[in-house]
Amino acid sequence: MNKRLVVALSGGVGGAKLALGLSRILPADELLVVANTGDDFEHLGLSISPDIDTLTYTLAGLDNPATGWGRRDETWSFMDSIGALGGEDWFKLGDRDLALHVERTRRLRAGQTLSEVTTDVCRRLGIGARVLPMSDDRVRTRVRSDVGWIDFQDYFVRQQCRPVVHELAFDGVTLARPNADIVAALRSGSVRTVIICPSNPFISVEPILAIPGMRDAMKASNAPIVAVSPIIGGEAVKGPTAKMMRELGLEVSAAAVAARYGDLLDGYIMDDADADGVGTIGARVTIAKTLMKSLDDREALARVTLDAADALASR
Amino acid sequence: MNKRLVVALSGGVGGAKLALGLSRILPADELLVVANTGDDFEHLGLSISPDIDTLTYTLAGLDNPATGWGRRDETWSFMDSIGALGGEDWFKLGDRDLALHVERTRRLRAGQTLSEVTTDVCRRLGIGARVLPMSDDRVRTRVRSDVGWIDFQDYFVRQQCRPVVHELAFDGVTLARPNADIVAALRSGSVRTVIICPSNPFISVEPILAIPGMRDAMKASNAPIVAVSPIIGGEAVKGPTAKMMRELGLEVSAAAVAARYGDLLDGYIMDDADADGVGTIGARVTIAKTLMKSLDDREALARVTLDAADALASR
Repeated sequence: MNKRLVVALSGGVGGAKLALGLSRILPADELLVVANTGDDFEHLGLSISPDIDTLTYTLAGLDNPATGWGRRDETWSFMDSIGALGGEDWFKLGDRDLALHVERTRRLRAGQTLSEVTTDVCRRLGIGARVLPMSDDRVRTRVRSDVGWIDFQDYFVRQQCRPVVHELAFDGVTLARPNADIVAALRSGSVRTVIICPSNPFISVEPILAIPGMRDAMKASNAPIVAVSPIIGGEAVKGPTAKMMRELGLEVSAAAVAARYGDLLDGYIMDDADADGVGTIGARVTIAKTLMKSLDDREALARVTLDAADALASR
Repeated sequence: MNKRLVVALSGGVGGAKLALGLSRILPADELLVVANTGDDFEHLGLSISPDIDTLTYTLAGLDNPATGWGRRDETWSFMDSIGALGGEDWFKLGDRDLALHVERTRRLRAGQTLSEVTTDVCRRLGIGARVLPMSDDRVRTRVRSDVGWIDFQDYFVRQQCRPVVHELAFDGVTLARPNADIVAALRSGSVRTVIICPSNPFISVEPILAIPGMRDAMKASNAPIVAVSPIIGGEAVKGPTAKMMRELGLEVSAAAVAARYGDLLDGYIMDDADADGVGTIGARVTIAKTLMKSLDDREALARVTLDAADALASR
């Protein structure tokens, strides 16, 4: 079979878990992870790409399982010191993590693209799979909330998701060009499946889908598009997905996430705990254990997802 | 007496020791330290000012007595990580130290001057004395050596002073404007003395003296100009001063340093160990214990230097 490439769309923590599972059961050249960059931002003069970094650290085995972001074996001397100098200290940057932000910022200023930097860093950290930003152009998620329009990291980190969300916008997205390597891969005729990882639909996946040309390229792959529900038992595993759904007037359910993706989906993987919502879902549903606690869980869910995709492809 | 202001020209370690001694025996508003910025450089995209930082950390009690540079209670996670990402790792930046470079770089890019950043950082770290860069314009010390012209930090840190020095140049110095606050202070009529700290003459003091207008302003202060020898017993306490003197064809002696400063000096403080060279020195010589091991040594040498200056003023 020549349709071997798995393309996975991912945000941070939850998506990175499934990406890791996929990376462990697929040959290195059969996985391309498309990273959301809508929550990228500039902080302390540094260019920070939280989802790329979580994916990178997770795939390199450097992630911090306690926090879900940043690096393991981290130290915090920089943060201890920056506040005393008048620097902003609401966004936590570990000393090891900082090396990536400093080096990336240097290279971007020197003219490299975010894709080039990401590819090189992944190579240096021994990651076999490709990780690419959805676009090298600047897209910034903004949140319309009960305290007005605010930047995403202001909402997410500084205000710890406390503001009530009314609307999300992706500044710059209408002018952003999709990453050419991603489009080329999707249109190469060799895509086995496009997987939408169990990430927050509104802030992790929809920025990717909003890039002009991205949905068309996904459809043009002629590969089954399969999403994994980020909602388990009517709640999000981590992060503000459930709160955000409530505030946006949506039911907090796996079925509501599937409805959000609409006819983009061919398949949908959801937990047994949410099985009573199956009836309303247009895509072909696979019921599975979707909570990924162990490494085995990650691999097992990756297998279930690929099996579901392959079953759809052979219909 | 209205001539109360002490202006001290300083490089890094040795100069900072005397500056600390001065800061402990003078009221805060009577000390202005002029910092060499010839060894400033851009590294990993960050603006680094080694002499300002050594002065700042020393005066704030945050210096690392073991290294002579950087901060005490330092950690090195950033350095541990940067090399694996392809970043340059020959210049050691501690995690706490890094906070200053990141915050300074951010502010300089936002349009603040180096003087403004330095003043604010000193205030935040509780330093009473003023520390000001010799100029807010870019001056970069370059070294003509047996391996060609090289940047100062390349010579000093990367190649650990191994190249043989033939000549020093201060790129940008002819266009650099002296720090206006320093000139105003020197011309205010309130200067008690100008002290040239026991720093390397060639790479720490001469960049300051080479700024157009700086020597004139020093002379116009009408205050005694007193230097403290960085050579003790025919050797430098730390750093490449002695090696550099030999390579430049100079005798390694306290007297040769005095000769280098020439008729700029009214007074010269040198160690008893070098007393046999006194006869050749044009300035009024004071013999003192110039090795500063303890805090008491720093204060004592500061007192000797001020006494010598006051004696010259009352002649």
